[in-house]
Order: sequence, then structure tokens, then C-alpha cells
Amino acid sequence: MENFTFYAPTYFSFGKGSEKDIGALVKRFGGKKVLVHYGGGSVKRNGIFDKVIASLNESNIPYVELGGVRPNPRSGLVYKGIDICRKENIDFILAVGGGSVIDSAKAIAAGTVYDGDFWDYYSTGKKVDRALPVGTVLTIAAAGSEGSPDSVITHEDGMYKRGASGEALRPKFSILNPEFTETLPAYQTACGISDIMAHVCERYFSNTKNVEITDRLCEGVLKAMIEESPKVIKNPHDYEARANIMWAGMVAHNNIVGVGREQDWSSHAIEHELSALYDVAHGAGLAVIVPAWMKYVMKKNLGKFVQFAVRVWGCDMNFENPEITAMEGINRYSAFLTSLGMPSNFKELGAKEEDIPTLVKHLGATDENPIGGYVKLGPKDIEAIYRLAL
Amino acid sequence: MENFTFYAPTYFSFGKGSEKDIGALVKRFGGKKVLVHYGGGSVKRNGIFDKVIASLNESNIPYVELGGVRPNPRSGLVYKGIDICRKENIDFILAVGGGSVIDSAKAIAAGTVYDGDFWDYYSTGKKVDRALPVGTVLTIAAAGSEGSPDSVITHEDGMYKRGASGEALRPKFSILNPEFTETLPAYQTACGISDIMAHVCERYFSNTKNVEITDRLCEGVLKAMIEESPKVIKNPHDYEARANIMWAGMVAHNNIVGVGREQDWSSHAIEHELSALYDVAHGAGLAVIVPAWMKYVMKKNLGKFVQFAVRVWGCDMNFENPEITAMEGINRYSAFLTSLGMPSNFKELGAKEEDIPTLVKHLGATDENPIGGYVKLGPKDIEAIYRLAL
Repeated sequence: MENFTFYAPTYFSFGKGSEKDIGALVKRFGGKKVLVHYGGGSVKRNGIFDKVIASLNESNIPYVELGGVRPNPRSGLVYKGIDICRKENIDFILAVGGGSVIDSAKAIAAGTVYDGDFWDYYSTGKKVDRALPVGTVLTIAAAGSEGSPDSVITHEDGMYKRGASGEALRPKFSILNPEFTETLPAYQTACGISDIMAHVCERYFSNTKNVEITDRLCEGVLKAMIEESPKVIKNPHDYEARANIMWAGMVAHNNIVGVGREQDWSSHAIEHELSALYDVAHGAGLAVIVPAWMKYVMKKNLGKFVQFAVRVWGCDMNFENPEITAMEGINRYSAFLTSLGMPSNFKELGAKEEDIPTLVKHLGATDENPIGGYVKLGPKDIEAIYRLAL
Repeated sequence: MENFTFYAPTYFSFGKGSEKDIGALVKRFGGKKVLVHYGGGSVKRNGIFDKVIASLNESNIPYVELGGVRPNPRSGLVYKGIDICRKENIDFILAVGGGSVIDSAKAIAAGTVYDGDFWDYYSTGKKVDRALPVGTVLTIAAAGSEGSPDSVITHEDGMYKRGASGEALRPKFSILNPEFTETLPAYQTACGISDIMAHVCERYFSNTKNVEITDRLCEGVLKAMIEESPKVIKNPHDYEARANIMWAGMVAHNNIVGVGREQDWSSHAIEHELSALYDVAHGAGLAVIVPAWMKYVMKKNLGKFVQFAVRVWGCDMNFENPEITAMEGINRYSAFLTSLGMPSNFKELGAKEEDIPTLVKHLGATDENPIGGYVKLGPKDIEAIYRLAL
């Protein structure tokens, strides 16, 4: 196990009616005037927005609204949010939505108190050490952004999708009411499931040895997802399954299951290019890319893939040829996602073979500066992974 | 799943050399003058104390020492610590030791800023909402107090062993260097393992339905403990196994694996009477009591015990008679602890059958005020559990 630090001071209020705590929590974490940030308006139609405002009103907290965050959130709205926050003396950002809304809120929070262009954090990897406090009211179990120090934004100038990170971005509080995810269509629900499982896999597939505790926790999250996911696809109003998935989504990404090990986020990076170019849902892209990445790298550390197949997917071990077991695990993962309605290849995703050189180039990895940890990936490797996903 | 809140803002620095962060972390969390609290002096003999002081000195933080905490920590030293803190204007308590030292430090932290007798918190269950900040340097993986809001103290006036709880007691930071646990004798190491596994079981055995995510996380911690524990008993200097157990001990008790469900801490309460009367190690007492409790309550919710047997202990399911499977799981748990050197009955623990009425009386449960959640336990039930442990 490697040395690590872990600090996850987000206050979670989980369950039915937890949105009633919003006003008190904004006050507890120092907010006096709030930017309420949201997406395309579904939170207005389904009544969630009104519940949020009711709690703010009850605590006499003034607010300004900024809607319009879209999936794969864009820099343009971030700049607009920063302007509003500065003009209106906003001191707290409340994100009401899924990962895109939360990530946009985090970018606004960082940019408002930063002298330069907020995009510096995203283009350079510079850690965000200062930001307005952020709270979240989660409506999609997927990104884990409600408990993470991360944010991903797409810059409209070149459509670069890049991430920033820093402890200042970790939400002060998150309201997790599983009922708020019940109106999500099956396809978006499945995208979230794919994202959650990918977050675990990007931690699980590590060359770091002797990480049994975090391996077992990762396997636990995946097995719970395997059990609960089909239930919500079958019945979107299955509160209990929604609740299990919602907590799993947080646990999968606040890093408690990923500490002390090298992680590998190359599947995310490879997928981000698909989202940026075709504007496809991140989880759908991951359902195509993660299994392709697995097939490409599995021989590097076959044991870990055999462990994945046996412990997570219940495959019988082929002692004569463990590679068959490893491949069976990957196939079951892919088939599971397909059974939830996810695409399994470029065609189903709406991506095109002829764009592969553009995707590779856009990602920007070189032989000298490869991506990945489990296996270092240069441009030829990345191209091969896209081709495995055709 | 039940509604819950979860807030665990402890900063963990984990790994070799992490003690170098102590001075900076005391400052970060507002400490200007520190009480360094420790136990019988082993931390002085093995050099850990000097490393702690070196880091405080490097940050120019003055300190006062208070050693002498014993296992099953006593109220007398807590009163002494409160006096010192008040006289010396201490504003930060640093616990260097295991759960007993940390729990004593928490009691001092609460008592110093409380107008009445600190024991009020322990005798009445009143939540601790104010305390001096506490940091820990952990030397025994066991109690989980390094990440929990809990403290257990024995009052010398009557030898009552009681717990207090409250968010103000959660450590601001904890230094987890697995090397610091390597000098611990095998018996104490095994006691810690028994305690960690019990902390998971007291959360796992719940009547709350639809808690697959936390069930799977609990099972993951237990399976990691089953894998790693024999390694440290065989080789106390197995750093990697120590590291896995150390993180497991924190995860087992900061409640991330226990949220959203009714929990049952009656095994802990029943054991506390043994520790208080015979001054036996808490983990050793739990190795005797937890399996006895399991045998007594298993028929109430047999399915959960069958799940425990199959998923955690790898028992083959007996479909004709699941009770046999459930009992097999309990027996394997007990045999596992015995294989690590733990006692399995009163005699091996040094407890006496004739004291059972005293133990039951001292615990104080009545038919009107039973203990337990999985099954409500009155005096007759508690007596039966002690007898099953003979």
C-alpha cells in the first residue's frame, strides 16, 4: 500500500425530506447569499426547485438563479456565473442537479475568487486551493461529484473537455434524497450506473500490491451495483434500489475505496474525447470504452482481471487458462451494461471510425507523455483501444 | 434504507513517516498549546513519543505531557487531565496510543470546556456538542476511535464502563503509520482484530431491509480482515498486512459502512461488563461474547446469518436446512478468532460462572428497558448469552 492522505469533510443528509436541511446547512457553512445553479429546467417541472427555494426562504437566505447547465457542461455558462457572483456578492453556490451542474458550480466557485481565467485550473492541472463554498442537491446518481474534489468542464474554444481538482472544490454539504432521482429516464439512469462502476474500476485496476482492504471495498460496491441496478431499470420508482445506488455513487468516488494505490483514469480521458466530439452521455461512452480498455491492457497484470472475474462476476476459475476467466469477466461486465440499455460499440454510441485520428490527436497524449497508470498509453495504444470499441 | 446523516471530517495522514505532519496539522486545526496524552510508556521505549515531540518542536508548539492511560481507561486520569488543561491553558489534545488513550483524550477534551462533571456525558447519553480539538497518533489498530465520535470510559466509583458520543469528539486529524503497530504483541494484535470485526458485525446484523451497499461494504471489510489477520500474527513486521488492517479498522468504525440501518451494540454492552469486572482486553471479551450473542439471536432473522455464512465465510449453502449453514458461519467466525490466539469461553478469558448474576445486574437492562436492536434483550436474555459463552 502506498502512503496517502484522506480528508472528505462533506456533510451528507440522506433520505426522504433531507432537502429541508438546505437552509440550515447553507448557514452552517457560512453562506449569506446563494447562487442556485441548475440545468435544463427539469428541476422546475418536477418540483425539486420549489422545495429547495422553500428551505432557503425558511432560513431567510437570499438567492440568485442561474439555470441552463447542459450535459458535458460548458465554459460559457461558467464565465457567466462568475460574473453574476461577483456583481451580486454571492458567497455560496448551491448546485441542484447531477454531476454536470455540480461541476459547473465548482468551476464558478473557483473562478469567482481567482484573479486569472478559471480555465487555468483545467488546462494546467494546478490544484484549486481556494473557492467559494459549494453545496449540492443531487438529482442523478452518477458522477460522485457530490462528495469529490473534482470538476470536469468542456471549453467551447476547441471543445476541450478537461478536469480540475482540489480540496477547495469538495462540497461542504450534499443533500441526497433518492426520490429526486426517480423521474430520471431509464437511459440516463443506466448512464449513471455505468459511470459509478467505471469510477470503481479506475481505482481497482492498479499495479499497487497488497491493497486487499480497498480491493474488497471496490468489489463490494460493484456487487451492490450488480444487484441493485436492474431493479431501477425495471421500476424507476424503486426507492430502495435508488437509495443503494445513490450511496454507492458517493462511496465510489470520494476515494475511501481508492486510497493507497496508483489509479488509472485513462478510460475516463479516452471517453472524454467522445463526449466532447459527439456530445454523448459520459456514462454511455464509458460503457463502450472501459471494456475495450480492459481487453487491451488485461495481459499486463492478468491476475487482477482474473480476480475481477471471479470475485465480482462470480466466474468459475479456469485454472488451466486463467486468460479465459479474465476475458469472461470483461464480457460479463459489458453484457451487464448492455442489459441495462447501454451501447457496447462506436456504432451504437453514434461515433465514427473515421474520427479516430481526430480523437487521438485531440486527447494529446504522446509517446513521451503517455496517459494511464496500469499500462502507459501512447497515441498508438489509444488508437488501438478506440478500434477495439468499434 | 433509513434516513441518515454522515459527516466524518477527520484528516488522515497514512503511511511511513506520516508523523512528520503532526506539527503542521495541530496548527491547521487551531492548536497553540498541546496536551500529549499517552499510556504506560511503551511509546517512550519504542521511540514513537520522540518522533511526535520532534514534529511539535519543529512547529514550535509547546506541550504538556500526561501519561498513564491504562487499558479500559479510568475516570481518575480524565479528571487529572481536565485540571491540567485548565491550569495550563491547553487548547489541543494529542492522543498517542490506541483506543484507550484516544478515548481518555476525548473525555478530557469534552470535560475541559464543560461546566459540570464530564461523567454526565457518559452516564446520561447526552451528546457531546463541545470539546477541545483532538488529534491522534494511532499505535493499535482496533477501536476505530481515530475516526469515530465515540469514547468509552470506566468510572472508578462503581467500575461502570460507559460510552459517550458526539460530533465534537471526532478527531480533527489522525496519523496512521502502520509501522507504529509493529511492536504490538500478538495477543494485543489479535484483540484489535476481534474488536474491528465486532464493529462490523454490530452494524451488519440489522433488521433494516434493502441495505445491499452497506452490507457489501461490511462483508468487504470482514473478508479483508480474514485475509490479512493471520499474516500479522505469523509475522508482526508484515507492514502491508498491518497497513490493510489499520485502514480496515478506521473504515469499520467511522460509520461509512453502517449508515442507513438500525445497528445493534448489545454485544459491546455485554462485553463491557466483563472488561470492567475482570479488566480483560475488550477484544478478547468480544471474541467470547459476539459468537454467543450470534447463537442466541440467529433464529430471529436467520437469512442474515445465512448471508454472513455464505458471503463472508464461504460456507456452502444447505438449502434443505439453512440453519445449519448459519451455525456453520458462526462457528467459523469463532474458530477464526481462536486461531489468532483469542479465547472462546469464560474459562479461557478468566471469567467465572458465579459472577453472571453480578454482570447482568451491573449492566442494568430491565424487561422494560432492554438493550439491543436485532433482538431486544432483557436480563434473562443477557444471562442466557453469558451462559452460552461459558
